[in-house]
Amino acid sequence: MNIPATDLPRIVIIGCGFAGLRFGKVIDTRNYQVVLLDKNNYHTFQPLMYQVATAGLEPDSIVYPIRKVFGGKRNFYFRMAEVSHVDTDSKSIHTDIGSLDYDHLIVCTGATNNFFGMEAMQRHGRPMKSLNESLDLRSNILQNFEAALNTTDLEEREALMDFVIVGAGATGVELAGALAELKKHVLPNDYPDLDVRRMQIHVIEAGPSVLSAMSEQASKKSEAFLRKMGVHVWLDTKVLDYDGHTVTTDKQTLKARTLIWSAGVQGDPVRGLGVEMGRGRRIPVDEHAQVKGLDGVIALGDVALMHTEDYPNGHPMLASVAGQMGEWSAKNFNRKAKGKDLRPFRYVDKGTMATVGRNLAVVDLKRFKFSGLFAWLTWMFVHLMLLVDYRSRLIVFMNWVWSYIKYDKGTRLIIRKVK
Amino acid sequence: MNIPATDLPRIVIIGCGFAGLRFGKVIDTRNYQVVLLDKNNYHTFQPLMYQVATAGLEPDSIVYPIRKVFGGKRNFYFRMAEVSHVDTDSKSIHTDIGSLDYDHLIVCTGATNNFFGMEAMQRHGRPMKSLNESLDLRSNILQNFEAALNTTDLEEREALMDFVIVGAGATGVELAGALAELKKHVLPNDYPDLDVRRMQIHVIEAGPSVLSAMSEQASKKSEAFLRKMGVHVWLDTKVLDYDGHTVTTDKQTLKARTLIWSAGVQGDPVRGLGVEMGRGRRIPVDEHAQVKGLDGVIALGDVALMHTEDYPNGHPMLASVAGQMGEWSAKNFNRKAKGKDLRPFRYVDKGTMATVGRNLAVVDLKRFKFSGLFAWLTWMFVHLMLLVDYRSRLIVFMNWVWSYIKYDKGTRLIIRKVK
Repeated sequence: MNIPATDLPRIVIIGCGFAGLRFGKVIDTRNYQVVLLDKNNYHTFQPLMYQVATAGLEPDSIVYPIRKVFGGKRNFYFRMAEVSHVDTDSKSIHTDIGSLDYDHLIVCTGATNNFFGMEAMQRHGRPMKSLNESLDLRSNILQNFEAALNTTDLEEREALMDFVIVGAGATGVELAGALAELKKHVLPNDYPDLDVRRMQIHVIEAGPSVLSAMSEQASKKSEAFLRKMGVHVWLDTKVLDYDGHTVTTDKQTLKARTLIWSAGVQGDPVRGLGVEMGRGRRIPVDEHAQVKGLDGVIALGDVALMHTEDYPNGHPMLASVAGQMGEWSAKNFNRKAKGKDLRPFRYVDKGTMATVGRNLAVVDLKRFKFSGLFAWLTWMFVHLMLLVDYRSRLIVFMNWVWSYIKYDKGTRLIIRKVK
Repeated sequence: MNIPATDLPRIVIIGCGFAGLRFGKVIDTRNYQVVLLDKNNYHTFQPLMYQVATAGLEPDSIVYPIRKVFGGKRNFYFRMAEVSHVDTDSKSIHTDIGSLDYDHLIVCTGATNNFFGMEAMQRHGRPMKSLNESLDLRSNILQNFEAALNTTDLEEREALMDFVIVGAGATGVELAGALAELKKHVLPNDYPDLDVRRMQIHVIEAGPSVLSAMSEQASKKSEAFLRKMGVHVWLDTKVLDYDGHTVTTDKQTLKARTLIWSAGVQGDPVRGLGVEMGRGRRIPVDEHAQVKGLDGVIALGDVALMHTEDYPNGHPMLASVAGQMGEWSAKNFNRKAKGKDLRPFRYVDKGTMATVGRNLAVVDLKRFKFSGLFAWLTWMFVHLMLLVDYRSRLIVFMNWVWSYIKYDKGTRLIIRKVK
């Protein structure tokens, strides 16, 4: 790879998710040469991806050019590259644009879909873990409605209009809510020839509650919101099979041409580390995020499994954890360069939140849990502020205001057809 | 095709460009059943497509969902369908979603690239006539710069950074200007390791002037603007060959990995009409836009060749002509239904304009020609007003203001890689 030689120690970061982004921002490049690798030239703001999938936002307003984030940072090199594997003996990384040696390797490769070995889900289910998958889902939803117009077989028409979402975590709940809003406000105008009231949205959850990572109050409230919006919520229900037409669970069968898989994620470690992965295919690391048994390799964010007193089974796979870890680790590198002691990682949980629909959201803060309109406004404000730049904030804000006033979603476009 | 039977005469419109869109808006569906077919579910505002290709605008802000345009219009059916051919004897249309009979067929299939039989251009050149081609061009420009970082071969690096645009019509000039702005304001920040000053932008024009469809003043001014911005303008120069690396003209050879083809368009008539096409592969029509020799077939916009006193060789292939023709023809249908006389078509030329760069544009009005800052503001205002809805206007306007203040282009994203 075409990176200038240097006397400084070289840090190579793989992946520009929240951990890689924060690490790259905070690391002091007077003491290190830093090379950031990502297969895309943009950072994705994953928490709003479901709005791209449901035609609420343009993809461009939730992804951000990496070169712009780091523009002007000296001694910092971004390369768009797909990493094939690392060699920890020779301390080198191998990619589709060549190889590179490292002194310190920061693995921030995040998470990917976990189908729990169910091949049928992998083949016929539609995941939403990357921007391209979200765009495909958007095309898929709209293409189904176009196709529903073209069939006179009523059973097939309803199967085209029905959506089964597996998993009632934040992604599943937010997607279900957004689909319910499309059903109520947008699709009846777009498809007057179809009886859109017959469109069914099912959420299937193996556990006993939706949003199980949040408080009981938030679980109960969000379930009530979903039901109020006409979403069928099936708790304690296991999905067994799907052939692209029929979803089989341990309780019933459902006809649906679209099954959205949001039931699980797992770590997406880089190949070649040669260590045994922990729970959820995450890389076991020590209290300094060092990969156990490897020299100079650190893992951060979703892909890292760090056992602490507060989180004995590892931290939750959340953007906020990843961002804080990235920042903390970079600060430790900066401290080390100045001869200072390293600090331990402590995740500060500022609260979690999820939105279900118009005026309907749930927020868990440490001392205070609330839901409804005020929670929804809080959710919007926090997510706007988390966006990387002012331009995105402005455009997302305008889209939201527009949708709110007009009961409309602006971007129901099939730019690239799927299948 | 699944369209309700009707006692009213059925009008089928093929294509939702400017002609089809205006026709569909104006036609009175109390007197006709109207079916609109398009292979996409959106209308494209082509005049701003070059800004998508050069990372200035999101695709979503210049395309518009067709169902939204016609939402609530009774007796009006949109179907996303690819027309394979028409059968004028049986008065039927054949598509990928089935067949349909028509009483009146409105062919608004627009224009496509004309490579003048040069296979090398078709194979290696990059056109920009559809939204997907624009997005591919955007990815192509950015991927080239990423690739330039990864080569140590200086000649190859410069070939990756050089762009040859063939054709100095509005598209060629506007693209060249936008590339020159990327070169000046954006790329040096994004690629500090590259000597972006070495990036060359060439415009090759076979004729003696740029923007030859406009006034001499506009031609001269826009050429001067381009040269001022560092673009190499080659007039009276014919492109002979291109192998993906080397552009051969009758004057010189240029090394460039990207050749953008904007040298010509031609009509894109639907198959099966069985009439001989006229100049520029356009469909010859009479003064009522009736296709000569066919019953109940009308052609409008770029694809139609109507000889009038003012335009003995047919009208220019412009959005404004297509829009006016669509509106005029629909009004004639409405008049006919009321037993009124048909009106002849008369194109009202409200002026033409093109923008080259920041504060630099040329405007030709009937009595008044001007250029520079005021022309640029006029160009922006007119194009904003021409956008289909308020939401797009707002978002495009904000993007422009942002770019103007920050000397930046927001959307330099490689969402789908090309090649």
